[in-house]
Amino acid sequence: MNIMAYWNMSYGVYTATTMDKGRPVGCIANSAMQVTVEPATIAVSINKDNYTHGCIEECGMFALSVLPENSDPKLIGSFGFSSGRNTDKFDSVDYTLIEGMPVLSSSCGHFICKVVSKLDTPTHTVFLGEVMDCDVMNTDTPMTYAYYHKVIKGRAPKNAPTYIPDELIVDQGDKSAWVCTVCSYEYDGETPFEDLPEDYVCPICGQAKSVFSKRN
Amino acid sequence: MNIMAYWNMSYGVYTATTMDKGRPVGCIANSAMQVTVEPATIAVSINKDNYTHGCIEECGMFALSVLPENSDPKLIGSFGFSSGRNTDKFDSVDYTLIEGMPVLSSSCGHFICKVVSKLDTPTHTVFLGEVMDCDVMNTDTPMTYAYYHKVIKGRAPKNAPTYIPDELIVDQGDKSAWVCTVCSYEYDGETPFEDLPEDYVCPICGQAKSVFSKRN
Repeated sequence: MNIMAYWNMSYGVYTATTMDKGRPVGCIANSAMQVTVEPATIAVSINKDNYTHGCIEECGMFALSVLPENSDPKLIGSFGFSSGRNTDKFDSVDYTLIEGMPVLSSSCGHFICKVVSKLDTPTHTVFLGEVMDCDVMNTDTPMTYAYYHKVIKGRAPKNAPTYIPDELIVDQGDKSAWVCTVCSYEYDGETPFEDLPEDYVCPICGQAKSVFSKRN
Repeated sequence: MNIMAYWNMSYGVYTATTMDKGRPVGCIANSAMQVTVEPATIAVSINKDNYTHGCIEECGMFALSVLPENSDPKLIGSFGFSSGRNTDKFDSVDYTLIEGMPVLSSSCGHFICKVVSKLDTPTHTVFLGEVMDCDVMNTDTPMTYAYYHKVIKGRAPKNAPTYIPDELIVDQGDKSAWVCTVCSYEYDGETPFEDLPEDYVCPICGQAKSVFSKRN
């Protein structure tokens, strides 16, 4: 059993969003896939601990926004590493309502889905959504999960179906790298980490320089 | 509604395989994703018309082999565009049995799964498999569905959850290209199609030159 096999599976990077009594909420999702063609349905796996989970349950609809490679890493940090329970993730993000669902303006495509079925597991619910509307917004290249790992140096949040604890990730490259202990982002800038200004923040999750630690 | 949005979703390319009374069977799968972490489970959507579907139902186990970018297109053709009802797809393919499940030797990683739950839809079943074993076989780059579209010039089989009819695919490039009417492969070799030898066969599905037609 070598759990690094999970990194051989390919995914996109999406926001799964919905409405919470008139307020837009959402989280990052990787585990999303088309299940049927006619009618078209899409399945997405959401952790029951995510605030978005209960909101999708209640609303009965969700939107998937496809994030392009040129997405602001902070957007992934905000939607992946903070909770809609105590923050308004949409405060600093442009979005439009389509069929009543919030779609990120920076996405390269979107799907508006009505929940038609569910698959329950102990920790996650797979929501099966019938696609009510979908569109391509521009020709940006969709971000893959591999790109997020390798280029943006990001990691999955703890609630993600694809989460692997940092200490179990083999072949991490630089063993002496400085890593954000909140989101596992690995600093790889030219300036030595120690010489960064004290107001440096993690480009993914926005946490302070002080939460970084050396991997070993 | 612009169904080309579906091509903005990212997937890998896998074989989903199982045993049919001692005989290895399988098909190509794109719609596969991790659903939970502990215990680890993977969901895969299989068309009920696929011979493999009934075999997974009966066997209660399946393997996912992750196909690398350097996979032989014929392998995808065989597993995607022919049926285990009347062909032995494994006759010309190296494989090993792991936990009793057939794993392709050319794969870069694999997962052996025991079916623990199912989500039923009119045309497809989403099998949820608990991962009994998984491994990385080599450092080959996993093939993405986008790579299969853009580099190998392949298309999804009719039974795939991600199938889009050829006539609905917008921006297909060369409008006068010769296209395989069985698997939608678009010929893009240097030799004019008309000048190819009569024994030319489609590199994806192996069909004869005569099944090709001009797109327009």
